Amino acid sequence: MLYERLDSYVRDSREEFEDKLAEMIEVPTISMEPDRAGDMRRGAELARQYLESIGARAEVVETPGNPVVFGRIEAGANYPTLTIYNHLDVQPADPSEWHKDPFTFFKENGRYEGRGTTDDKGPALSAMMAARYAAQNGVPLNINFIWELEEEIGSPNFEHFIKNNLDRLSTDSILVSDTIWISRSRPAIPYGLRGAMMLTMTLETGAKDVHSGLTGGVARNPIGELCKVISECYDAETGRVKIKGFYDDVVRATRQEVQSFLDSGFTPQKFKKAHELKKLRFDDPERVLKAIMAEPTFEVHGIAGGYQGPNVKTIVPHRAEAKISCRLVPDQEPKKVFRLIRDFVREKNPDIKCEFLGALEPYIGEFTGKYADAASRAMKYAFGRQPAFTREGGSIGAVVTMKNHLRSPIIFLGLSLPEHGYHAKNENFDWGMASGGIKMFVRYFDEISRLSE
Amino acid sequence: MLYERLDSYVRDSREEFEDKLAEMIEVPTISMEPDRAGDMRRGAELARQYLESIGARAEVVETPGNPVVFGRIEAGANYPTLTIYNHLDVQPADPSEWHKDPFTFFKENGRYEGRGTTDDKGPALSAMMAARYAAQNGVPLNINFIWELEEEIGSPNFEHFIKNNLDRLSTDSILVSDTIWISRSRPAIPYGLRGAMMLTMTLETGAKDVHSGLTGGVARNPIGELCKVISECYDAETGRVKIKGFYDDVVRATRQEVQSFLDSGFTPQKFKKAHELKKLRFDDPERVLKAIMAEPTFEVHGIAGGYQGPNVKTIVPHRAEAKISCRLVPDQEPKKVFRLIRDFVREKNPDIKCEFLGALEPYIGEFTGKYADAASRAMKYAFGRQPAFTREGGSIGAVVTMKNHLRSPIIFLGLSLPEHGYHAKNENFDWGMASGGIKMFVRYFDEISRLSE
Repeated sequence: MLYERLDSYVRDSREEFEDKLAEMIEVPTISMEPDRAGDMRRGAELARQYLESIGARAEVVETPGNPVVFGRIEAGANYPTLTIYNHLDVQPADPSEWHKDPFTFFKENGRYEGRGTTDDKGPALSAMMAARYAAQNGVPLNINFIWELEEEIGSPNFEHFIKNNLDRLSTDSILVSDTIWISRSRPAIPYGLRGAMMLTMTLETGAKDVHSGLTGGVARNPIGELCKVISECYDAETGRVKIKGFYDDVVRATRQEVQSFLDSGFTPQKFKKAHELKKLRFDDPERVLKAIMAEPTFEVHGIAGGYQGPNVKTIVPHRAEAKISCRLVPDQEPKKVFRLIRDFVREKNPDIKCEFLGALEPYIGEFTGKYADAASRAMKYAFGRQPAFTREGGSIGAVVTMKNHLRSPIIFLGLSLPEHGYHAKNENFDWGMASGGIKMFVRYFDEISRLSE
Repeated sequence: MLYERLDSYVRDSREEFEDKLAEMIEVPTISMEPDRAGDMRRGAELARQYLESIGARAEVVETPGNPVVFGRIEAGANYPTLTIYNHLDVQPADPSEWHKDPFTFFKENGRYEGRGTTDDKGPALSAMMAARYAAQNGVPLNINFIWELEEEIGSPNFEHFIKNNLDRLSTDSILVSDTIWISRSRPAIPYGLRGAMMLTMTLETGAKDVHSGLTGGVARNPIGELCKVISECYDAETGRVKIKGFYDDVVRATRQEVQSFLDSGFTPQKFKKAHELKKLRFDDPERVLKAIMAEPTFEVHGIAGGYQGPNVKTIVPHRAEAKISCRLVPDQEPKKVFRLIRDFVREKNPDIKCEFLGALEPYIGEFTGKYADAASRAMKYAFGRQPAFTREGGSIGAVVTMKNHLRSPIIFLGLSLPEHGYHAKNENFDWGMASGGIKMFVRYFDEISRLSE
């Protein structure tokens, strides 16, 4: 019965899905912009109403920052509980870069454009509509919803929320729908995330910029010295980090894992196109996939200091700061990596100050076992192909927090595609992924409701 | 007679000097600011009136840019001609960095504060008042004044002015008063200038900044790659340029020249203090003096690109540009040095584009011969000590232009001190240097008027 009527439910739900997505997209829940408290509140209230409209109990839970929307569909005390995590905050958007206004929903032939469509409002609503269908059709599963509003700023209050609601957050497993397939032709189930560690390197050699004619040759150049140390830290052409001990704790991906990455449908050509990159550091698919999924990085995000305007102003700058981060993989420990870098830099140039700015631990989860198998079957059912097990190169702080406190298996069932413009201009989503997603989630709910049988 | 009354002339002129300097300082002739056409015009008109007030014929000569003020004191067709070069345009000034408003003249105990006091309005007026005295006392010398208004932007129209006025610019020698002593205790006569060659290095690796989680490891980092190439070009800690052939054409300073640099009263401590530098690349006085006077440099003025705001935004930037210049010494040829750098960079990283932005040739002039000897005697007469012959580390484009077109010996008789804050905040000048300067110029005029005897 559950599957016989599913196609018609999905078809019949399309208009409601589009209306709800449109209404949600038009609330600019940009967590990075400090003046958005009113919009965050509106977004949370709308989300609560949506959850209530599908028959969940729902509430807006306060935190020291933006609230979290928490909902629950009660099936029965003896049934297992699944927790679905999504986030409703979005990246900023510069309207001048977009075809259309980023916060006006634009729909054409089943393609939805607007900030947040794919990251992560579209996937959140797909899961919600699947949950209603499962509940109405008697799937014996309690479903908790955690809809966060601070994911794009690193989830600073998420741990506070989890710790303060531990009693009602008890769960048998967790479903996160905030990840990206490698290719539209092949579903992907990520089972790992890179961590991240942010730092600044600062060098001040004087009290003011000086005249490069009068002092040049003997005045120290802080930009030049930072460039030198950065070049000693890593080889920018290959990305290889040269700091002793940096790779010591890296757990290499197994042959089987790498094969699964390769099975994802990845091609360097599509990757280059999706990210508008002219060339990659290397083109061998295996090397690329290992580099973005299972290896740490050293990245220079910017150098502040010196003259930035038109032409050349011939000063010797007095201060320079480089903004740096490392993506980390299991079993690298962020604080340990920071100390390695700081000690290395101190040895090379004792005047450079390294400041630790924050970190997220790397995460590795299930790619075998009953939840992973259920996920795999659900994806195949909805999208027609066996998914590849991959890893995400980015970091989701909330995942590590949930792992540490809720101690349950976590499964990623994402619906975003590289061409959806995740974090980029003209972000979009589509009915193909949304409708497939609803079916996938229904199947997954059904599968895991029967795991204890 | 000439010298008997000179002290009282200087004393009696002080009030007039201060009034004229004050009036001139309060015209903000900032050539770097595009909206200053009216102020440039006012400054030029005031200068013309000053020259007429001392009995010179004077006119404001148009160029495609700011005008040049040209004046002449006629002594007689059979007498030699001296051309005095100064500039009346000034560096920009940020009022928030200064004690007082930079364009309100402030006088206290013979110390004059304001933008342009030492660079170069004070020295220009000292020379002008000396010229009046010489003329009134029958020194047989014609004196031409060239007061430029574009020196601080590299004299883009100065060659145009010289070429269009060649007939009336014929001269036996040139006096430039726009240089700095090394120490107040010892006069200095520079006889050389470093040249300069400006370029940008640009690297574009994609069409937009990308997510360092999704792409980091395989997306090229243009800041990192520029840092690497810059570190291959030179060792930022020592300043040593590593590009093959870079030093090939450098004419080393002789033992005698280096001894003269050392005689200037230079100490690394005073140099550090004057420029507010924490440490120098090296502290040996001889090494420092060679580095700033007689050796070329490689300088990074800024790197534009990547994220510059607070905290860390974890993007991989798509474009970076480094602003670079080299100060050059005789006999380095700027275009040849550019080609060496461009070819080196192209070999190391073919995607980096080097763009030539402009150059000034290095200059070396007289430190022996009759004009140098006359300058030396004039300085000793006015300031009580034998001057040291030094070189300036900076570049004055107009000097090379005058050398090429007017083909006459050029002598630098500057009056600025390191503590005057040349190009810096709280720029100042003082009556000690101005009054000594008037006496020095009178003696120099007298000396060279008798050279052909």
